[in-house]
Amino acid sequence: MPTQKAYKTGSTAPEPSAPGVLRLISMRFCPFAHRTRLVLAAKGIDYETVNVCTKNKPEWFFAINPLAKVPTLQHDGKVVYESLVCNEYLDRVFPGRKLLPEEPLEKARIGMLQAIWDAKISPNFYKIANKDQEGREDIIKVFKEGMSFLEKEVTSKSFFGGDEPGFLDYSFWPWFERMPVLEVASGFKLEEAEFPKLFAWQAAMRDRPEVKEHAKDTPIHLQYLMSRKQGNPDPDAGLQA
Amino acid sequence: MPTQKAYKTGSTAPEPSAPGVLRLISMRFCPFAHRTRLVLAAKGIDYETVNVCTKNKPEWFFAINPLAKVPTLQHDGKVVYESLVCNEYLDRVFPGRKLLPEEPLEKARIGMLQAIWDAKISPNFYKIANKDQEGREDIIKVFKEGMSFLEKEVTSKSFFGGDEPGFLDYSFWPWFERMPVLEVASGFKLEEAEFPKLFAWQAAMRDRPEVKEHAKDTPIHLQYLMSRKQGNPDPDAGLQA
Repeated sequence: MPTQKAYKTGSTAPEPSAPGVLRLISMRFCPFAHRTRLVLAAKGIDYETVNVCTKNKPEWFFAINPLAKVPTLQHDGKVVYESLVCNEYLDRVFPGRKLLPEEPLEKARIGMLQAIWDAKISPNFYKIANKDQEGREDIIKVFKEGMSFLEKEVTSKSFFGGDEPGFLDYSFWPWFERMPVLEVASGFKLEEAEFPKLFAWQAAMRDRPEVKEHAKDTPIHLQYLMSRKQGNPDPDAGLQA
Repeated sequence: MPTQKAYKTGSTAPEPSAPGVLRLISMRFCPFAHRTRLVLAAKGIDYETVNVCTKNKPEWFFAINPLAKVPTLQHDGKVVYESLVCNEYLDRVFPGRKLLPEEPLEKARIGMLQAIWDAKISPNFYKIANKDQEGREDIIKVFKEGMSFLEKEVTSKSFFGGDEPGFLDYSFWPWFERMPVLEVASGFKLEEAEFPKLFAWQAAMRDRPEVKEHAKDTPIHLQYLMSRKQGNPDPDAGLQA
């Protein structure tokens, strides 16, 4: 079995993947890469993983993606990066359940909710984990405002995508999986009484096989977060030496 | 002729638009709203404009868009916001020249270049305008790195979209139109010798009727920028009293 350990600065680039083999360049704890792994699993797409260290990036990674960010896909000589771009690409190119709607207003709704997530939730997540963060109360306020928009959006269906998880469900989930870590690290948690529909959604997501396939336990996420807070994020946290 | 003046905090909401009339909620100097005006013009779509002040936002705007950001479209009771989401919606719903490709890798390429723009260029633009900005040299370095990626991408075709401007051309243009303002305000400019293809692209863009239709002269842009630097951005700059 190939190692999951991350390639770091100074490493030799891995051999290119065999013809026809889709490769995901990932980092085990990156929530953005997690998004793409969920979509790969949901659509039943075969692929191989190359993990990299996102703090001490391998030089060869910049030759593939000028931003050297995960996730990055390599697919028959083509390169696709940015998590949402990767997910749309996979949805359009591979067979299996469609995750993005064709109807323009439905598609726009996904873009608008994603914008609320990007503006209010994801940029504040790791700030909340840091108890010493300046202006933390205001940050929590904006974070919960964002969650309130989502709460209103899961009123009539089980998932954001309808009866089955879709594009947004996989886009949001990685941060929800890490939410218990926030509580352990900083005492912050969302209250079920305030967000009952989001809690029901989380329970439904946790039951999905594609979510289970890529789930990590809270202690492992916490181990990574602690290494990150100490300024030396360990992409191999939880792996055997 | 209806006034172009911006609705501000405390204003009464305008009457809803007549049935079938597309409305754009905009701000005359917002580069994001400018993106959508270019797409509306390129596709020859009829619409009416309601300008708002983005500093002292009208309360009624939050009832339409919880983020109260421009551009926002109102279309037969439907609401669409976020500039790129608006532009994709317009491209898909209205007839006229298609601005987004259907081919998945071409579509992904647009998302990736947009990501480079979002990461390296647009967030640094107004920082460069401020000569006192801390770390300005590093900011300029990242900004020019982003421009270098674009320079490589306009090698074989006149526009990012091909022989005619497409999604990316309209997405990027508003900041290029404001670029001379950077020079006047802060002495910074891109050098043609370093970015010859981007300069040729700019000349070609300036000639386009849809670009001319929404172009403002540098002194007007500068008047707005100066009001912005003084902490009181004037959405009505250049309009008659």
